[in-house]
Amino acid sequence: MDEPINAAARLKNMRNPVLQQARSLKKRRVRDETHLFRIEGHREIDRALEAGVDIRCVIYCDTLPRFTRSEETLKRLKAQLDASTYATSSSVFSNLSQWQNPDGLLVIAEQPSIALTDFKVDTNGVFLVIDGVEKPGNLGSMFRTADATGCSGILISDPVVDLFNPNVIRASLGTVFTMPSALASSARVAEWLGKKDLRIVSCSPHATQSYLDASLDAKCAIVIGSEKDGLNESWIEQSDTIVRLPNAGYADSLNAAMAANAMLFEAYRQRQDPAQSK
Amino acid sequence: MDEPINAAARLKNMRNPVLQQARSLKKRRVRDETHLFRIEGHREIDRALEAGVDIRCVIYCDTLPRFTRSEETLKRLKAQLDASTYATSSSVFSNLSQWQNPDGLLVIAEQPSIALTDFKVDTNGVFLVIDGVEKPGNLGSMFRTADATGCSGILISDPVVDLFNPNVIRASLGTVFTMPSALASSARVAEWLGKKDLRIVSCSPHATQSYLDASLDAKCAIVIGSEKDGLNESWIEQSDTIVRLPNAGYADSLNAAMAANAMLFEAYRQRQDPAQSK
Repeated sequence: MDEPINAAARLKNMRNPVLQQARSLKKRRVRDETHLFRIEGHREIDRALEAGVDIRCVIYCDTLPRFTRSEETLKRLKAQLDASTYATSSSVFSNLSQWQNPDGLLVIAEQPSIALTDFKVDTNGVFLVIDGVEKPGNLGSMFRTADATGCSGILISDPVVDLFNPNVIRASLGTVFTMPSALASSARVAEWLGKKDLRIVSCSPHATQSYLDASLDAKCAIVIGSEKDGLNESWIEQSDTIVRLPNAGYADSLNAAMAANAMLFEAYRQRQDPAQSK
Repeated sequence: MDEPINAAARLKNMRNPVLQQARSLKKRRVRDETHLFRIEGHREIDRALEAGVDIRCVIYCDTLPRFTRSEETLKRLKAQLDASTYATSSSVFSNLSQWQNPDGLLVIAEQPSIALTDFKVDTNGVFLVIDGVEKPGNLGSMFRTADATGCSGILISDPVVDLFNPNVIRASLGTVFTMPSALASSARVAEWLGKKDLRIVSCSPHATQSYLDASLDAKCAIVIGSEKDGLNESWIEQSDTIVRLPNAGYADSLNAAMAANAMLFEAYRQRQDPAQSK
């Protein structure tokens, strides 16, 4: 580091209130109450910086073996923000971290707004609507696919999972910050889609039409049902098209993240080469 | 159940050697040494039955609230096998289970052969080669996608993960049993592909050709590199085509399971409608 840390300045126990707050933010209840959350990992924090997330304080440990990965990001944090910065001992950091082999960098940030009223996006593209998603890893993975395939935004209806859950952030590789997203009831999401004149294409194993026959090259919203209950009645009623994904084998369904992946890549393909799309 | 269990016949403590074995099989070392493994969950056990996996013994608990899901599978096990069957108390079963809310059904089975020499399959289709995969959930998810898209088989080269890891079984929803698969060194896998005259199409973020320009409608093998290190040099040298998946957004790569998903769905698409494929 540019400025060597005086050993005495390193926080060595958890009594410090900043460290106590960082630890308490592992709990969803505390995240919900304070509207703060934690981000770990240099790639995840890089994405948060790119997205302009309001980072309140920085906690790091430059004596951990994997800290070298975080060094550039810490420099960037110091250059771009005037957030309070705390160095800790490696045992304190390991205690704080939710990772098995921490990178030695953690920030506390304010939760960006995910209200539908603040969802200002260009509505000419492809949107992903995820209904009642429960598994943080699946949700994070859907963000990462949406990012890769150039999706315009993600709407999460009737969510069970917390968008600021550390596993969502990690599985998304921080794209949860850069991809525009909003949370609302399914009724409010459907109303918004209607106002924006987005065609609703939903996936259900009970549909007869193949996903390959859906027009995904024009503006549209792809709706993926919950892992547990599939697509609910109100989405079925409001869909312009309901399509099925293949199940050539023994299992009777795909998981939600794989279904979203297949649909978003098909939308990507149709938009690459309009002559090939239907 | 057809035959009500006498309360006295229910195993109430873990001292029984069958229960001790079931518990010890949570460890990979024990699985490797004994060539046995555990399967939990009715869907997973159904797939194992369909695939003719050699089930040695059955442990169940019909007093757990979620046992109703397993009832049909237990009947099937009793009808199709003459494996020893043990009823346990709910506390013993919960202790044995690796699930938070167990379905009350667990079997011990012999590990099916996954040697390349025993890999007898029709080689006219699409194969998935997974190199150096580490995460059980990702591997299981790739089996499930391969199952859904009609993949002919999976070759796992230089594996780090154990195919009989409970998270592989669960994430695959048991398709790890029904989908033909083999494990071998990458040199042996490449040699096998050569002998079977399978075109090798590998994915790398460093490639220039789009995955949409790859011919996946004829017989071929799709190679996915490891999450950590990507595609290794020897696969790059041996590939007929190297393609890249999109990264329109902020993250620089997709995870291995998402990449496999995108490639297998593209292969599925090209084989559905040859007029559309390149």
